[in-house]
Amino acid sequence: MKTSTRDRILGAGADIIHHKGFNHTGIQEILNAAGVPKGSFYNFFKTKEDFGLQVIDYFSDHFARMAKDILEDRSVPPLERIKRILRNFMDYFRSTNFTRGCPVGNLAQEMGDLSPAFRDKLKGALDRITTGYAGVLTEAQKAGEISNQIDVKETANFIVSSWHGALIRMKVVQNLEPLENHFKFIFDYVLKP
Amino acid sequence: MKTSTRDRILGAGADIIHHKGFNHTGIQEILNAAGVPKGSFYNFFKTKEDFGLQVIDYFSDHFARMAKDILEDRSVPPLERIKRILRNFMDYFRSTNFTRGCPVGNLAQEMGDLSPAFRDKLKGALDRITTGYAGVLTEAQKAGEISNQIDVKETANFIVSSWHGALIRMKVVQNLEPLENHFKFIFDYVLKP
Repeated sequence: MKTSTRDRILGAGADIIHHKGFNHTGIQEILNAAGVPKGSFYNFFKTKEDFGLQVIDYFSDHFARMAKDILEDRSVPPLERIKRILRNFMDYFRSTNFTRGCPVGNLAQEMGDLSPAFRDKLKGALDRITTGYAGVLTEAQKAGEISNQIDVKETANFIVSSWHGALIRMKVVQNLEPLENHFKFIFDYVLKP
Repeated sequence: MKTSTRDRILGAGADIIHHKGFNHTGIQEILNAAGVPKGSFYNFFKTKEDFGLQVIDYFSDHFARMAKDILEDRSVPPLERIKRILRNFMDYFRSTNFTRGCPVGNLAQEMGDLSPAFRDKLKGALDRITTGYAGVLTEAQKAGEISNQIDVKETANFIVSSWHGALIRMKVVQNLEPLENHFKFIFDYVLKP
């Protein structure tokens, strides 16, 4: 299937924004990377902000597809699925030399204060991520893997937020220690029977 | 005491960078806010990056002074001091309408990948913060408030990282819920006797 021009612009832009952030990325830079002429951009995106909002959907859909395969694999016990997705991310960040972090977390940090439209879109993307984890935690409760006393929504929020914080530290120390530390505290202290 | 021109530039720049990030902040904007002529900037700072590194020191020193008063107040039990500093921050973020977040965490997210000089400076600032918490956790162990089995350095790293992640979420949901959720998980699950 031929990639559409819109998808090429989105893919190239998402890649640069994941690395450099939204404000620090120029439209021309995106078009150069996508190999399309400047006029094309405004055929598909009203403004740079509109483009940014569509990049968030792009990231969110990408995460959802990846997460679905792992988190909804009912042949694997629920907690093991959460361990697998976190280990999957660790493999990814090993491959990036501990750079980039979570694109949704990055944009929430960078743009949450600056644009109401980004804020709403990012809120939706973060809710979608935490809802995925909460579903698996509910299964873990039914399977007796974790206490029925914990609030799965609050716990899912804590897992995702603390992960985003660990990714911030990872960028600075340039190793997986913050992610391994997150994994340890989540599974040794929070997700217990 | 008259504020020096250098300090006025630093203070004004720190304030704007805390809000908008480093790359999105221009030197002219900082000088306008500080009310000093352009030539002044390069009397004190070699480059914009050099300025950014001095802003990190400014934030780090600001945090250290604030933290010292609370975390080293031996008239208060150790865990209560950690609760107090987190509640202090919550009051601050209530006053900012849940914006801004931690300037050191923000810059680690934004600049960790992009500048080795920022990365090293931010690593030092984050180590300084976590060392402060680790010291209080050691006191909490001696006082029997928390288990002697926990590794105070790892725990301090987890508290600080998960806090930074909660601040990211705060910017998007625009309320204190992520910070209150962090507080709950840290004190109900991690910092126990």
